[in-house]
Amino acid sequence: MKILLIGASGTIGQAVAKRLSDQHQLITANYSGGDVQVDLGDSSSISAMFNQVGQVDAVISTAGLANFAPLEKLNDAEFNLAMNNKLMGQINLFRLGQGYINEGGSITLTSGVLSKEPMPGSSVISLANGALESFVKAAALEMQSLRLNVVSPVFVKETMEMMGMDSSSGVSASDTAKSYQAAVTGSLHGTTLDVRDYI
Amino acid sequence: MKILLIGASGTIGQAVAKRLSDQHQLITANYSGGDVQVDLGDSSSISAMFNQVGQVDAVISTAGLANFAPLEKLNDAEFNLAMNNKLMGQINLFRLGQGYINEGGSITLTSGVLSKEPMPGSSVISLANGALESFVKAAALEMQSLRLNVVSPVFVKETMEMMGMDSSSGVSASDTAKSYQAAVTGSLHGTTLDVRDYI
Repeated sequence: MKILLIGASGTIGQAVAKRLSDQHQLITANYSGGDVQVDLGDSSSISAMFNQVGQVDAVISTAGLANFAPLEKLNDAEFNLAMNNKLMGQINLFRLGQGYINEGGSITLTSGVLSKEPMPGSSVISLANGALESFVKAAALEMQSLRLNVVSPVFVKETMEMMGMDSSSGVSASDTAKSYQAAVTGSLHGTTLDVRDYI
Repeated sequence: MKILLIGASGTIGQAVAKRLSDQHQLITANYSGGDVQVDLGDSSSISAMFNQVGQVDAVISTAGLANFAPLEKLNDAEFNLAMNNKLMGQINLFRLGQGYINEGGSITLTSGVLSKEPMPGSSVISLANGALESFVKAAALEMQSLRLNVVSPVFVKETMEMMGMDSSSGVSASDTAKSYQAAVTGSLHGTTLDVRDYI
């Protein structure tokens, strides 16, 4: 399969690339570097990326910005970042990318477990994740020739260790990548894949 | 209790007003008409409303615009309406209204069952509803002196009948109002109230 991976330079993106590159042709996209560049917060940049890459069999996004912030310090800028980048950026990948994906192909986005298991400071991240999961479930009802799913990672073990956190509740990047493989190579549609179910 | 009800002229809003007005002092807010006027899509209008109303014990929103639209016809305008009005409009009620609610008071927003039980054409409504439910669950973790909840209605029986639909899966407006009463007078916090659980 020819797979376009957006966010390929991130911790999860790198693990997904490693897991899929043996059997598939990967095109990596990042904000800077990679085979093509894309700014997820700018729909014209997304269109330009698809125009440059052409037809693929699958699109995976492990990208999308949204910040932790205490509720009392949440300002318009934090809401706008989460809504324009993590949320609408990924939805625009779907909207603008559909026409570039071969029949029977798939689109896999990334939310996160904070939609259902929030923590203090996660409110705009939770918002974006919950929105993505509900959108994917709904949109899938109207899609015939493409599959649409969203992977919901927990904290990545390596990141937690780097930050000096107890990583026992985390999932390694390579185990996290298994969910993306399942979404792309399986037959799921309209599903939120909890990475803990695919280890 | 002194309760500010936004969206008081809607089908659900009227039923909530009827249910609560015997025991509480209601201030009704609508886009036009009511005790005060508010445009949920305009944060300065929301601020002006709170400034005009002053301190209350509870805020209820049964308002928020988002449209049904087939996936292939969804344009930026439809996304923007759902995100700016139903989603951020209600979140801005919380953000801008907090300071006007007496300690121990509550804020109750409205999502809808399409977040978890979507139907064809519901994708931006599902998005807004899912975002609201995840935000409320997360934000509640950081709130001490106020309670925050969201009521998730199903289709209202009266509306379904008016549209010539089979209304057997619907819940009447007066039964739907029971969830808002439970949210305001009970001790729930960070919860999505499925109206079918409160009939």
